[in-house]
Amino acid sequence: MDRRKFIRAASLGGLVTGLSPVRAEAYAPQRKLTMVTSWPAGFPGLGTSADRVARSIEAATDGRISIEVHAAGECVGPFEVFDAVAAGKADLYHSADYYQQHKSPAYNFFTAIPFGMTASEMAGWILHAGGQELWDELSAPMGIKPLMCTSTGAQMGGWFNREIREPADFDGLKIRMPGIGGEALSRLGALPVNIAGGEIRQALQDGSLDAAEWVGPWNDLAAGMHEVAEHYYYPGFHEPGGTLTLGVNLDVWHDFSDRDRAIFRNAATAEYTRSLAEFNVKNSIAMNTLAGEHGVVPKFLGEAVLSAIARQADEAVADLAGRDAVTAKIHRSFVAARRNAMRWANIGEEAFTRARRLNRAD
Amino acid sequence: MDRRKFIRAASLGGLVTGLSPVRAEAYAPQRKLTMVTSWPAGFPGLGTSADRVARSIEAATDGRISIEVHAAGECVGPFEVFDAVAAGKADLYHSADYYQQHKSPAYNFFTAIPFGMTASEMAGWILHAGGQELWDELSAPMGIKPLMCTSTGAQMGGWFNREIREPADFDGLKIRMPGIGGEALSRLGALPVNIAGGEIRQALQDGSLDAAEWVGPWNDLAAGMHEVAEHYYYPGFHEPGGTLTLGVNLDVWHDFSDRDRAIFRNAATAEYTRSLAEFNVKNSIAMNTLAGEHGVVPKFLGEAVLSAIARQADEAVADLAGRDAVTAKIHRSFVAARRNAMRWANIGEEAFTRARRLNRAD
Repeated sequence: MDRRKFIRAASLGGLVTGLSPVRAEAYAPQRKLTMVTSWPAGFPGLGTSADRVARSIEAATDGRISIEVHAAGECVGPFEVFDAVAAGKADLYHSADYYQQHKSPAYNFFTAIPFGMTASEMAGWILHAGGQELWDELSAPMGIKPLMCTSTGAQMGGWFNREIREPADFDGLKIRMPGIGGEALSRLGALPVNIAGGEIRQALQDGSLDAAEWVGPWNDLAAGMHEVAEHYYYPGFHEPGGTLTLGVNLDVWHDFSDRDRAIFRNAATAEYTRSLAEFNVKNSIAMNTLAGEHGVVPKFLGEAVLSAIARQADEAVADLAGRDAVTAKIHRSFVAARRNAMRWANIGEEAFTRARRLNRAD
Repeated sequence: MDRRKFIRAASLGGLVTGLSPVRAEAYAPQRKLTMVTSWPAGFPGLGTSADRVARSIEAATDGRISIEVHAAGECVGPFEVFDAVAAGKADLYHSADYYQQHKSPAYNFFTAIPFGMTASEMAGWILHAGGQELWDELSAPMGIKPLMCTSTGAQMGGWFNREIREPADFDGLKIRMPGIGGEALSRLGALPVNIAGGEIRQALQDGSLDAAEWVGPWNDLAAGMHEVAEHYYYPGFHEPGGTLTLGVNLDVWHDFSDRDRAIFRNAATAEYTRSLAEFNVKNSIAMNTLAGEHGVVPKFLGEAVLSAIARQADEAVADLAGRDAVTAKIHRSFVAARRNAMRWANIGEEAFTRARRLNRAD
């Protein structure tokens, strides 16, 4: 129906009776949703990604769905967002699912495990190799529909106030590192703690932490980590492609129309490209600022240290996988996806970037 | 308005008069759009990505927008899709913009140039470092709104019926390689031709081609390239992150509501994640099949050959950039984005994948 016919119909027969067929979408009620997040207000990369996915859903529904985004602590604490959404106190969360590893160790695989998968490899597993189905199976009993939403891309190994020359240097190190990364380091004698991002700087400053991983140069510069820690190590062995979740209360998800589920899926999956691209661009610019204006020289952790961590990480992962059948199944699926990804990377992107590095002056 | 209030309003006051405000989105007319593509019907990766983005737009509009997707040759030939959409004979195209390099050499930068950028680096440039604005500036005068839609990820160097041991082996080689990759090889004496994907197999078989790049193992296996060519070279130096465009007729784009533009942007950007992830997963599986069932052993082009190609490619790119001001501006932006990307990749993802490779048995 074109605009002219519509106006005629409206003036002739009343707004609705003149329309044929009356489209179901016309009468979908407006819906206000609440999103709780694990990030400080407006925090670059993480908070801004949560905001952006909310705004893109509003734009794609012309405001029929509106989403109020809350920073950590505004409604609930940064680690309480999952429970709040599961209980229906909020509709959506934006967070890292490995903060829920106490519910199931399998949650680590959906955020990051040490020596795991890069951002595009994670997307391969979740979207095209069975990952989403396993994630649904894990989360549905807890009342959550998880959507892959944001990727930090590669990260840094972290900020240290103690130099790491050999594996023994982790002994007694108080380090903020969530997930299996922290578990692997604890097997080398470190004392991992999990505190929210907003509290790291103070803890490094007052000495209650010796070291901390947060995200990468963009976030770390914004948080002022370089003002309170001396050494900045790479690579980010523990989180090769940190994946953040848009979690939806399962009743809300089921209550959505097919259209709204498609809008949410498109918005979250688009945000994966947008956030990964943004992290990569901004991390490089921030690294330049850290080096040029603050004299930060990134240090390589070294092959011996990385090998020691990898051995402990593999043992930690194997121990987790042995705990219950669901985690074991997810572990098997993850390892198969990683094996597949590495085989192609070897002759695909890795072979290309190696050739490019040898041949580029600019 | 919740469901109960909505039902009460409907029964009391008539469906529309009881609703306040009546939303403009309710009366948007249904719209049928036509998409023309450069791919054979249902072709894995490329054709299926065009279909998937169309279906995801239909789902996100509950069919208010429907999109009929046409394979190459159904309406117009594979290289005529841009002109058809520019002229309003079709609404959308799904294609590689470097097929339009005769219109402007700058189009190469938006698909792929040799030793250019990987998939996530391309997204960084286009979405967060000025690429989209330059692409709009290039395409608007031709009547096209371009959206980054599909990524092939890393590709292979191509299928050859002549062995490449040194740069001189390209002399006289009849090779299908579009874009600047072909131009670089022509400076080494090769004879590049550009024919559509669907015609490559026959041309290799009847000897009118000695070699051809197409996409990667997934597409190449489906096309039966291994049955008509002997050597399979890597890496895909010429197209490190092949980017395919969803092009929209500019009048159609301007005619869209903000909501529909948001739906198109989300669908196209989501398709970038979906397609890249799918290519990576399927390429690895196909490479396994090629090796295991057809005895194909991928061969490394070698550093000397790659360096010779890189030198010619850089000269070819510099020549193009000198031709007109718009191309020069786009070239400068591309090179700056690549420099930024490489700086972070070095301590980010590349440093990680190297560490992973040294430490993984499974």
